[in-house]
Amino acid sequence: MYSQTLFSYLEASAVLVCALSGMMKAAEKRMDIVGTFSLAILVAFGGGTIRDLLLNRRPFFWVEHEQYLFIVMIMCIAFVYRPSFFKVAGLLFRRSNTIDAAGLALFTLSGLIAALNSGIPFLPAALIGVITGVAGGVLRDVVVNEIPVIFRPGGLYAVAAFAGCGVLFACRELNIPTVIGTSISFIVIVGLRLLSVYFGIALPNPHWSDEKLNNK
Amino acid sequence: MYSQTLFSYLEASAVLVCALSGMMKAAEKRMDIVGTFSLAILVAFGGGTIRDLLLNRRPFFWVEHEQYLFIVMIMCIAFVYRPSFFKVAGLLFRRSNTIDAAGLALFTLSGLIAALNSGIPFLPAALIGVITGVAGGVLRDVVVNEIPVIFRPGGLYAVAAFAGCGVLFACRELNIPTVIGTSISFIVIVGLRLLSVYFGIALPNPHWSDEKLNNK
Amino acid sequence: MYSQTLFSYLEASAVLVCALSGMMKAAEKRMDIVGTFSLAILVAFGGGTIRDLLLNRRPFFWVEHEQYLFIVMIMCIAFVYRPSFFKVAGLLFRRSNTIDAAGLALFTLSGLIAALNSGIPFLPAALIGVITGVAGGVLRDVVVNEIPVIFRPGGLYAVAAFAGCGVLFACRELNIPTVIGTSISFIVIVGLRLLSVYFGIALPNPHWSDEKLNNK
Repeated sequence: MYSQTLFSYLEASAVLVCALSGMMKAAEKRMDIVGTFSLAILVAFGGGTIRDLLLNRRPFFWVEHEQYLFIVMIMCIAFVYRPSFFKVAGLLFRRSNTIDAAGLALFTLSGLIAALNSGIPFLPAALIGVITGVAGGVLRDVVVNEIPVIFRPGGLYAVAAFAGCGVLFACRELNIPTVIGTSISFIVIVGLRLLSVYFGIALPNPHWSDEKLNNK
Repeated sequence: MYSQTLFSYLEASAVLVCALSGMMKAAEKRMDIVGTFSLAILVAFGGGTIRDLLLNRRPFFWVEHEQYLFIVMIMCIAFVYRPSFFKVAGLLFRRSNTIDAAGLALFTLSGLIAALNSGIPFLPAALIGVITGVAGGVLRDVVVNEIPVIFRPGGLYAVAAFAGCGVLFACRELNIPTVIGTSISFIVIVGLRLLSVYFGIALPNPHWSDEKLNNK
Repeated sequence: MYSQTLFSYLEASAVLVCALSGMMKAAEKRMDIVGTFSLAILVAFGGGTIRDLLLNRRPFFWVEHEQYLFIVMIMCIAFVYRPSFFKVAGLLFRRSNTIDAAGLALFTLSGLIAALNSGIPFLPAALIGVITGVAGGVLRDVVVNEIPVIFRPGGLYAVAAFAGCGVLFACRELNIPTVIGTSISFIVIVGLRLLSVYFGIALPNPHWSDEKLNNK
C-alpha cells in the first residue's frame, strides 16, 4: 500500500503541471480566458477522471478537492492577464516538453498507485497508469484538432510512462521505500521522455522504410 | 431539492433542442439519415450521459426514458426527408445560435440541479452543470473535425453557462421558487450567449495583441 | 439468457479483429510500435470499455482478461516487425473493409447480449450494442483526425449493426438456439456492410440533391 499523503502530493502536482500544459497549448492557439480555463481543466482533470471511472472511485477527485478548481482558475487568470508571473519562473514557453513530461510522469504514477492500492495486478494497473498519464494530452490534442503525441511516430512517450511503471513495481518488490521508488520512477519517465525528444531517440519503425511502396 | 417534475421537463426539452442542434450540423455536413441520427443522439444524449457517469446515476436517463430514442428517430426522419416540417416552425436554419444557446442552457441547468440534488456543493456542481451543458457541443464538433465552440475565442459560452449556474444558486439562497429561479437562469444563459454572438461581446484576450511576437 | 461461453468467444474475437483494424489504420498513418499498440488497444478495448461503463460492469473486461493485453502486444510486435506473418493470412491490407465489418458485428453482438443479459429492454439494448460496435471505430478515426465512418454519407454501417440486433432479437423470440441466432446476426451485419461498400448501396440522402442551394 502506498500512503495517502504521497498519493495526494503526486495528484496535486500532476493537476498543477497538467493545467499549465493546457494553458500553454491554449496560448499557442490564442484562446481567450474561458478557452484557456476549459483546456486547463480538461488536461488537468481528464486523466484523473478517467482513472476514477476505471477504478470506480467516487466522489471524483475534483469533487473531493474543490480547491483544485479555484487554484486552476487563479492560475489561468494570472496566465492570461499577467503572463509575467509565469515568465519569472523560467522560460516556460520554451519548456513545454519538460512540463508535458512531468505531467505525464505524475499522472502515470498517480494512476498506477491508485490501481495497485485497489488490488489490481501489475499489468492492468500499469495500463491504467499509462492511460491516466496520456489521457490529458490526448484529450488536449483531440479538441484542438491535432494528432495526439502518443500516436505520432518518434519520441518515447507511452514507453517512458510504461518503463516508469516497471521501475515503481521493481522498487516495490525490492522493498525500497515508496517515496524513493516513486521519485526514481518519476526521474525515469521524465528522463526517458526528454532524452528521446532532445536526442531524437525513437523506436525502430519499419513503416518508414517502405514509404515508397505504400505511397504508390 | 428541486422537484423531479421540473427536472424531467428540463431534461426532455434539452434532449429535443440538442437533437435539433445535431441534425442541423449534420445537414451542414451533408450527412445521410444514419449520420444525422447518430449525431443527433450524440449531441442529445452525450452531455446527459457524462452527467450520469459523473454523478453515478443509473440507469442512464435514456434507458429510463426509452421514448427519447423514438422521438429523436422520428424527428430525424422528418428532418432529413420532410424538411418542410421544420421550416414551418421558423427559419430554423438561420437560428442555429438560438438553438445551441437553448440546448446549452437546458443541459447546464439539468446538470446543475441533478448535482445539487445529489448533495454536491455549489462550485463542483456548477462545474458538472457546465460540463453537461457544453459536452454535447464539444462531442458534436470533435467528431466532425472542428474545434469546439468553447475553445474558440470570442463569444461568451461557458461563461454564460456558469453565470446561469450562479443565478440559480442565488435564487435558491433567496428562497425564490425553483420554477422562477430556473426560468431566470435559463433567460440569463440564452441572453448572455446571444448578446455576445450578435454584439460581438468577448472576454478581453491579451493573446491577440501580441500576435506579431508569437508569429515570428 | 445467453451463455457466458458464447459471450466470451464473441468478445475475444471482437478484441482480436478490432486490434487488427487499429493496427492497419496505424500502418496507413506510419505509426511506430507504440502508436500502433496504443491505437490497437484503443480500438480493441474502447467499445467494450464504454459498454462496461454503460452497463456498470466491473471489473472491466480487460482487467478480468489480462491475457488480451499480452496477445494484442504480441500481435502488434509481429505486425510491425514481421508483417509477413500477417500477409500469409491473406491480403489483409486489401481487406480492411472485411476486418472492420467483422469487428463491428462482433462488438455489436457482444454489447447487445451483455445488455440483454442485464435485463435492459430491446431498444436501449440495441442502442448499447450499436454504440459498443461503432465506438472503437469512432475513437480510432477521431484520434487520427478523420471523420468517423458512421458520420460519412454512403455505406450502411450503423444500420447494418442495428439490423443485426433486430435479427438476434427475432431469433430469440422465435426460440432459435442462441448460437445459430448469433451466427445469423453476424452474417447479416457483415453481409449488409460489405454489400453496401462493394455495390455502393446507400440510404437516400436528400442533402446531396440540394447541394447547389446550400453552397451558394
